[in-house]
This record gives sequence, C-alpha cells and structure tokens, in this order.
Amino acid sequence: MSPSALVDRVLGGDVRAGARLMRDLDDALPEAIEILKQLYPATGRAFVLGITGNPGAGKSTVVDALIERYRKQGKRVGVIAIDPTSPFSGGAILGDRIRMQRHATDDGVFIRSLATRGHLGGLSRSTADLVLVLDAMGYDLVIVETVGVGQDEVEIVSQADTTVVVTVPGLGDEIQAIKAGILEIADVLVVNKADREGADRSVHHLLSMLELRSHDAVPVEIIKTVASTGQGIDDLVVAIERHATRPRQANDPRRQKRAQAMITEALFERLRRQVVDAFIACPQLIARVAARELDPYSAADELLASLDTTSAHAEDESLFPPR
Amino acid sequence: MSPSALVDRVLGGDVRAGARLMRDLDDALPEAIEILKQLYPATGRAFVLGITGNPGAGKSTVVDALIERYRKQGKRVGVIAIDPTSPFSGGAILGDRIRMQRHATDDGVFIRSLATRGHLGGLSRSTADLVLVLDAMGYDLVIVETVGVGQDEVEIVSQADTTVVVTVPGLGDEIQAIKAGILEIADVLVVNKADREGADRSVHHLLSMLELRSHDAVPVEIIKTVASTGQGIDDLVVAIERHATRPRQANDPRRQKRAQAMITEALFERLRRQVVDAFIACPQLIARVAARELDPYSAADELLASLDTTSAHAEDESLFPPR
Repeated sequence: MSPSALVDRVLGGDVRAGARLMRDLDDALPEAIEILKQLYPATGRAFVLGITGNPGAGKSTVVDALIERYRKQGKRVGVIAIDPTSPFSGGAILGDRIRMQRHATDDGVFIRSLATRGHLGGLSRSTADLVLVLDAMGYDLVIVETVGVGQDEVEIVSQADTTVVVTVPGLGDEIQAIKAGILEIADVLVVNKADREGADRSVHHLLSMLELRSHDAVPVEIIKTVASTGQGIDDLVVAIERHATRPRQANDPRRQKRAQAMITEALFERLRRQVVDAFIACPQLIARVAARELDPYSAADELLASLDTTSAHAEDESLFPPR
Repeated sequence: MSPSALVDRVLGGDVRAGARLMRDLDDALPEAIEILKQLYPATGRAFVLGITGNPGAGKSTVVDALIERYRKQGKRVGVIAIDPTSPFSGGAILGDRIRMQRHATDDGVFIRSLATRGHLGGLSRSTADLVLVLDAMGYDLVIVETVGVGQDEVEIVSQADTTVVVTVPGLGDEIQAIKAGILEIADVLVVNKADREGADRSVHHLLSMLELRSHDAVPVEIIKTVASTGQGIDDLVVAIERHATRPRQANDPRRQKRAQAMITEALFERLRRQVVDAFIACPQLIARVAARELDPYSAADELLASLDTTSAHAEDESLFPPR
C-alpha cells in the first residue's frame, strides 16, 4: 500500500490500515512517522478520556461499562489499555482485560493494548502516537486506561482532556499513599465496588484529601459505582460530560501540555538513538566508569564534547548553546 | 565549608556533610556534581542491595529486620527509601516507614527518603547519586527500597548487586501481573507474612513462574519470612550472602550496566535542561502544534535543526553524526 493510500484509508476509518500503522509505529519505522505527520492536521477532534486508579480497583470493568454507554449514544470509541508487563518477556497477563474484549466484535470499538515495556522512545510517546491514530480514524472518544502507578503512566493520563481516577473502599495504608499521588490529577473521582463496606467512609476520606488541592476552580465530583452491575455509570457519564464541556480558554492548557510532551518525546526519541550509537562507538567509556577510572559526569562530558565544540559555530537559534 | 573540606568530611563519614551534599544534589547544584566527581574514585566498595515488591508486601518491615541483623554483624548500613508521592505536592505518606525510623538514632544507620517526583534529571539519577554519596561515606551496605511498580523503579533496583523481591500470599490477579514484571529481576524471592494462609501455594506459584526464566545459571532462592517477628530473616541474610558472593566475572555485567545508566542519566540531564531553554526560546512552537498547524515530529526537527546543520562539521567522534 502506498503511503498516501494508507493515509486515506486511516482517515476513512479503515481498521486494518489503522492497525497496520500502529504496528509500524511500535516498530518505530520512519515511514510510519511520516504518515503520522500527514495525519496530524486531521487530529485534535477526539475527546481523550484518561482512566487510572489502584490495581484491583476495577478500572477495566468501569471502562467496559463506559464503552457500553457511549456506544448507546452512537459514539465510536477507541481504547488504549496500558498493561503493566514484564521488563524482560514483555508479556501482559491481565484477566480483567478479557471482559472488555466482548466489544471486540463491535466495529464501533477499537481496543489496543500497550505494554509498559519495550517501547522504543518510551511509553508516553507510544501512547500519544496511538491517540493520534485513533483520532485520525475518526473515533469520537479515545479512552486511555492505565494502572495509576509509575511516573510515566501518571504523566500520560494527566494529559487527557478529562481524567477519571478509580478507587475502591478499604485499601491499606501504602496503597492509599499511591492514591494520594494520582488523586491530584483527578477531574472526576470514582469509588467503585461501592456496595462494599466502607464506601461512604472512602468518599469522606477523598473529600478531606481534596481539600488539600488548591487549584480547583470547579469542585471535583465523586461518583459511587458498582461497575460490574452498571450502577452509577450513568452518573459518571454525566460527570465526565460536565467536566468536558466546562468553559475552556482559547488556549486549553491541557492541550498545550500535550503538544509540548509530544514534541519533547519526539526530540528525545531521536537523541536516545544517537546516544545508543555513541556508546557503541566508545565501549571503553563504560568500562572506565565501572572501574572508577572516570566518573559518570565526566564521561557524559566526553560524550557531549564534540557536540559542544561544534555548537559554538551554530547560529543564534542553536538548541545547544556553547557553555 | 570549602569544596575540598566537604569532600574530606564526606569521605570521613561525617553525617552532616553527607546530608548537606545530598540536599545540594537534590537541588541540582553544579558544585555538588563537582564534589561527586571527586568522590567517585572512592566509591564502588559498598554492597548495593535492591528491595522491591508489591505495595503492602511489608518491604519496609523486611528492611527494618535486615538493618537489625546487619548492625549485629557490625556493618554500617545506608538506606534509600523511594516513596511513591504526589506528582504535585511531592509529599509522601507512608506509615510503614515510621517503623524503620527506630534506627535513626543509631549512627551506624543512615536513612534517606526520596520522593518519586520532582527530581531534576529523574529518579534513576537521583538514586544513583545517593548511592555514590553513601558509598563514599563508608557505609558497607546500601539498601535501595522501592515499590516495584513503574518502569523507573524497576530499572533502579535491577542495577543493585543483589535484588530481593518481596511478595505476600493471596494477592489478586492484577497484582500478580505486576509481580510477574518484577519477578524477573529477582535474585532472591521473599514470601513475607508467611504465617498467612496460602504461603505454600504462593511458593509453588513462584517456582512455576521462575521456570519461565531461562537466564538463571544459579537457581533463585525463595525464602519464607514473617518480618514483623523476625522469622526467616536469618535465612534471607544467608541467601543474600550466597548470591552476593557468587563467582563474578572480571567485568560484572551489573556494574557495567549501572555505569552505563549513570553516564546516560548525566548526559540526558544536561540535554533536558537545554531542551527546556529551547522551549522558552520558541514558545510559539507549542501553540502551533496544539493548533495543528505543525506536527510534533516536524516541531522536534525544527528544534534540532541548527544542531544537525552544525554537526556536519564535527570530527569523526561526533556524538551526533549527520543524518
């Protein structure tokens, strides 16, 4: 398929073309980046919904219930499910995820799993690329679901238009602490499995933690759900809608932040490859640092030295000014 | 205090000098990096022990019990406890950690908490710097404890000389999946809270998962502990010792890996600052990408353009060869 034919088919919502582009992006093929550049002007239309929360909070069940509701509204839904995976084998083993697959036969739903490891250029860039492809394919809503632990994952969902954080009643102290981290990126909070004991106590606890947030122009809504039965999901859809349609400034800071993150990731992706090459070119550098003959900071200086020398000849707008 | 006086006092194990250097490194002061360069030849003597595992597995209690045993052996122990923290406030709220503080009055023990957010240059570099300082201060053992979720944290503990992964009986499916990720970096496995039901089942489950690992020259030991009572901790110390004293190759791949990670982090730390400056110099770039007038990849090209032009004039050993 020619590049322009692939662009047209992705823009036409062709699932096989979209899936192929996603695979090519996974493999970091330069042609795939070129196609993404061509698709980019057609993106920015999808509403991006981030969903995160504690392990075991039932995020996938919430996503599953949301897909059902949005499909009833006639919306086309793309889902990017970020799986915690092995750093070595790259395999994901999430039983919960199976439930969501019942939508796999619905051609208004596209579900793509993304492993947290092995992504050239980082998880953040891989996710941003997938959002762009789904957006270009014409999905009205793109849901990005991650386990809310790890700096990368928190970063990713915080770039969504609306971020939902899912928790459950009665978690231990340490898990509460993790929640404290992701709590602050929540636009809407969900207490799932709310038929369990302690649901109201959790809501009160969350309310008191929210008081520590000072940046809320609009109060964060807390919704109680039992996603497995669908209870509370309609309320959640309304709360998301209310956040999503809040008056936005001309330059939405979230979209600016996402744009900056995408540029930064693209830039560092290129730098990372060049650094890998540099290490291959100077294998003795690592051995000298390991042997304590050279410190890591001076080694980094050495790697950068030739660059720094030449950047002295650069024009004023040089990215790397001489030190 | 003059820089050379500070170097001498850190090498002499002065706690206040060490703590001051750590603070200065946190603030990314260039003088602190210079001091670290001078300390570096004196490092590489401490044994670095990584401890990670599921949230709620009792890692801090295990660390606490290990500190006690190692102190009885007359060893001086440094601890770096990496706390999952809020992306905004930077505050950590780990009740478990309090237990460890009973060693705070013992001058053979130095405990330092490190928040997972807000570290200029990344968590990995910050941790590596703290290990170097504790090593230079003459601590025999440096324990790095992290919650085993998130790419950065797994990366960090995988660079230790010996990595212990702590789990508990009877965790749910999703948490098991996270464990599958960190299982593969384990040199020694601990099933803590082994007085709970299902401990033997957990051991069998772990054994069957370990069979999937192909790179084990020496079998990974699985130790059952009840850290809160001290049960099994002596066995754990022996297992760590057995792994630590295994025959090593002249160029230990772990230490090479750590050296490469330190160089890379130092290098990217400098690049990151230059990229921040570049964005400040071109604020319209972000707005154009957010407005879909320019795609993020082309924006990255623009940022790199002046660099690429000049690197064509670089010598052969240029880090950034012309494309």
